Amino acid sequence: MEERKILLREDEMPRQWYNILADIAMNPPLGPDGNPISPDMLAPVFPMNLIEQEVSQERWIDIPEKVLGILKIWRPSPMVRARSLEKALGTPARIYFKNESLSPPGSHKPNTSVAQAYYNKEFGIKRMTTETGAGQWGSALAFACAHFGIECKVFMVRISFDQKPYRKSMMATWGANCVPSPSMETRAGQAALEKDPNTPGSLGIAISEAIEAAVSDESGQTRYSLGSVLNHVMLHQTIVGLEAKKQMEKINEYPDIIIGCAGGGSNFAGLAFPFVYDKIHGRQIEIYPVEPAGCPTLTRAPFVYDHGDTAKYTPLLPMHSLGHAFVPPPFHAGGLRYHGMAPTVSQLVNEGIITPKSVKQRQVFEAGVLLARTEGIIPAPETNHALAAVIEEANKAKEEGKEKVILFNWSGHGLLDLTAYENYFAGNIKDIELAEAEMAEAMKVFAGHPKPQNLKTAK
Amino acid sequence: MEERKILLREDEMPRQWYNILADIAMNPPLGPDGNPISPDMLAPVFPMNLIEQEVSQERWIDIPEKVLGILKIWRPSPMVRARSLEKALGTPARIYFKNESLSPPGSHKPNTSVAQAYYNKEFGIKRMTTETGAGQWGSALAFACAHFGIECKVFMVRISFDQKPYRKSMMATWGANCVPSPSMETRAGQAALEKDPNTPGSLGIAISEAIEAAVSDESGQTRYSLGSVLNHVMLHQTIVGLEAKKQMEKINEYPDIIIGCAGGGSNFAGLAFPFVYDKIHGRQIEIYPVEPAGCPTLTRAPFVYDHGDTAKYTPLLPMHSLGHAFVPPPFHAGGLRYHGMAPTVSQLVNEGIITPKSVKQRQVFEAGVLLARTEGIIPAPETNHALAAVIEEANKAKEEGKEKVILFNWSGHGLLDLTAYENYFAGNIKDIELAEAEMAEAMKVFAGHPKPQNLKTAK
Repeated sequence: MEERKILLREDEMPRQWYNILADIAMNPPLGPDGNPISPDMLAPVFPMNLIEQEVSQERWIDIPEKVLGILKIWRPSPMVRARSLEKALGTPARIYFKNESLSPPGSHKPNTSVAQAYYNKEFGIKRMTTETGAGQWGSALAFACAHFGIECKVFMVRISFDQKPYRKSMMATWGANCVPSPSMETRAGQAALEKDPNTPGSLGIAISEAIEAAVSDESGQTRYSLGSVLNHVMLHQTIVGLEAKKQMEKINEYPDIIIGCAGGGSNFAGLAFPFVYDKIHGRQIEIYPVEPAGCPTLTRAPFVYDHGDTAKYTPLLPMHSLGHAFVPPPFHAGGLRYHGMAPTVSQLVNEGIITPKSVKQRQVFEAGVLLARTEGIIPAPETNHALAAVIEEANKAKEEGKEKVILFNWSGHGLLDLTAYENYFAGNIKDIELAEAEMAEAMKVFAGHPKPQNLKTAK
Repeated sequence: MEERKILLREDEMPRQWYNILADIAMNPPLGPDGNPISPDMLAPVFPMNLIEQEVSQERWIDIPEKVLGILKIWRPSPMVRARSLEKALGTPARIYFKNESLSPPGSHKPNTSVAQAYYNKEFGIKRMTTETGAGQWGSALAFACAHFGIECKVFMVRISFDQKPYRKSMMATWGANCVPSPSMETRAGQAALEKDPNTPGSLGIAISEAIEAAVSDESGQTRYSLGSVLNHVMLHQTIVGLEAKKQMEKINEYPDIIIGCAGGGSNFAGLAFPFVYDKIHGRQIEIYPVEPAGCPTLTRAPFVYDHGDTAKYTPLLPMHSLGHAFVPPPFHAGGLRYHGMAPTVSQLVNEGIITPKSVKQRQVFEAGVLLARTEGIIPAPETNHALAAVIEEANKAKEEGKEKVILFNWSGHGLLDLTAYENYFAGNIKDIELAEAEMAEAMKVFAGHPKPQNLKTAK
């Protein structure tokens, strides 16, 4: 009988992460003076062992045994042949996905939270702070900290804190402390509340709060953690793509097309980067990060130097950005509502090595429901963005009569996002597109920022 | 490095279910006249192919290829060595669990819903009805019906329908129609609403409604489906224990103790019955079904003939029962709030082949939180009952200095039950024990019922 899942044994798990910094040209992050920052300048924010990873040029970095031991709770993740979807679409394409929804927090996020908690623990850190939007990242860090006995504090965007009480309970069950942001606990929070006592909050404000809470702890035993965007986060996620390559080899396949949803970039990068390596070295392959039309960072925003947070606590990063003060319109994919994009992903788009796509909200949920009813798993709203693009490509293969091999990343399940589906069935999901004027307004913040160079990756 | 999960390949999945009716002595179900019912009498309720399974005496029954194909979405399920828990308890016991939380609906329930939907489809049925308490079973049947294009109607106990909107959305996403029970759609529902327009509903009433909705469809194309209690449901769940046996063999282990939570009995039976077979044939092994002290069917209620539902639509079944009109006190494990128990499980308890235990609510959640923080997965409140007993046994092994091997069934995850944990952290979980007087009152319904015989299973 046909295999549904292509599995790896635990002893076949990758033992090293792939670091794309060894293979691409990058503009450096800049400090307030416009000069490249030095690693020490990040020392109050991150432990030095993670800062070293952030700037490392080594192509392969060992995964610590203890990290592997915890990843084994759900890894290696299955690669699944989506035969029921293929049948429903009548496509000659062969469609595969990495199922990252099986981790206890329900998404790909713990691939990096476990590694980050490990390195913080090794460095003697007792307490970690972070922000979360819809709550996927906050629960992933809570899960990881529980394994290392690290105290965990999460600033959760207030509107989500109020609307998604289950995520907060999830963090509490793993022992973390989650508060709504803006809070009165930080200067950044106080300023936001002073400006608008009824603010729903934003990811930019929550990041500022979490950084401030870390650096202002005088004991020196607290550090901040980010769940996407940064190089070391992309690095930790590459285990997804490295596993997928082994799984493809087992069945003598190789993908023609790679697809992942992109908010900060980590889910996309985790699957794609090991294949980007192949592409840089001459292999023919299409690679598509997919974003919502309502937050079109890669498809419509420029490649600039911008801050990662509203209060401008972070360095200037070379990235596609809608402006650090931009508040994306409300839609049901909290993980994709971020003004910026990982510098590594941004660089690859800027060079044309990967090709971004954007999709609209109704198409997104139509895709999610089709996948739920064919492949069985209810996808996270973020995943639905990738699915919409997968269906487009599968239909194109059908029109062209081509047996394309499509591989995508199923970033998480939607069990804590079911109100989004409820809204879809009630006809309350609207397509959102950003007006030119609104974008132009948001981008005024770039005035005076240095410009990144148009670097070219050597092949 | 140590393996965390003991995995089977898809081609190692069991190809047959184990039917315990071939090995134990059973009292027959009785009709309204007090005589054993014939299979035809069930024909308006279930398709004949499932009725044949219900009464079959064959020890091994083939699993259809199409059922296996869908089970492969998440099966074979991993057997996991709970090393982090062992370490936290400092026990010499080796603790293993079958992780049934990985199915898309999040529990062991689809092991039977997929099989039931398959047989209904084969028999030409177009529409299935069922009841659900907290929603685990309703979502499992919705998931299964989506794969076979069968219309699915779920009567959900009103208090859960109002309190757990996510489960309803989950069923809708898989295409099912879920209504609160009692409803105005059935005579049983109308009668309940007439008696008390504000009734919170009960599982007994919801079962009556679902049966009535099936048998009253004059097209003859609707059948009812039950998620526990019946012989064919236990049969379909044995894939859990059969996989576990293979996994134990792979690492040269054999369990000294088997533990599962028991509401209607299917989660317990699924793991335990293949090991009960060994015990009947001479193997030394302790087997414990675990129930809540607030609904002590096996530990305190008598072995009687009773109905499975409030409106007495079902035959009289030989089982441990608190009385078909009994409404269990409210606690956070909807799946364990049932007045009766599977006849097969009841028979084994009556004969002393397996030994029931009961646990209290605070102990139950304490266990769940410990497991979430050690093994990573947030357990369903039902699973927490098994965990509490596992911890008791592991601590006993520590006191006795014995290297016991404990195997338990992780019946589901608690991601849609997180309010229960929230209540636990807020100090709102109370221990509940049933008063003698209340039990005596509930059991008055047995007056006039025939008595089952004390049959002995031949060894």
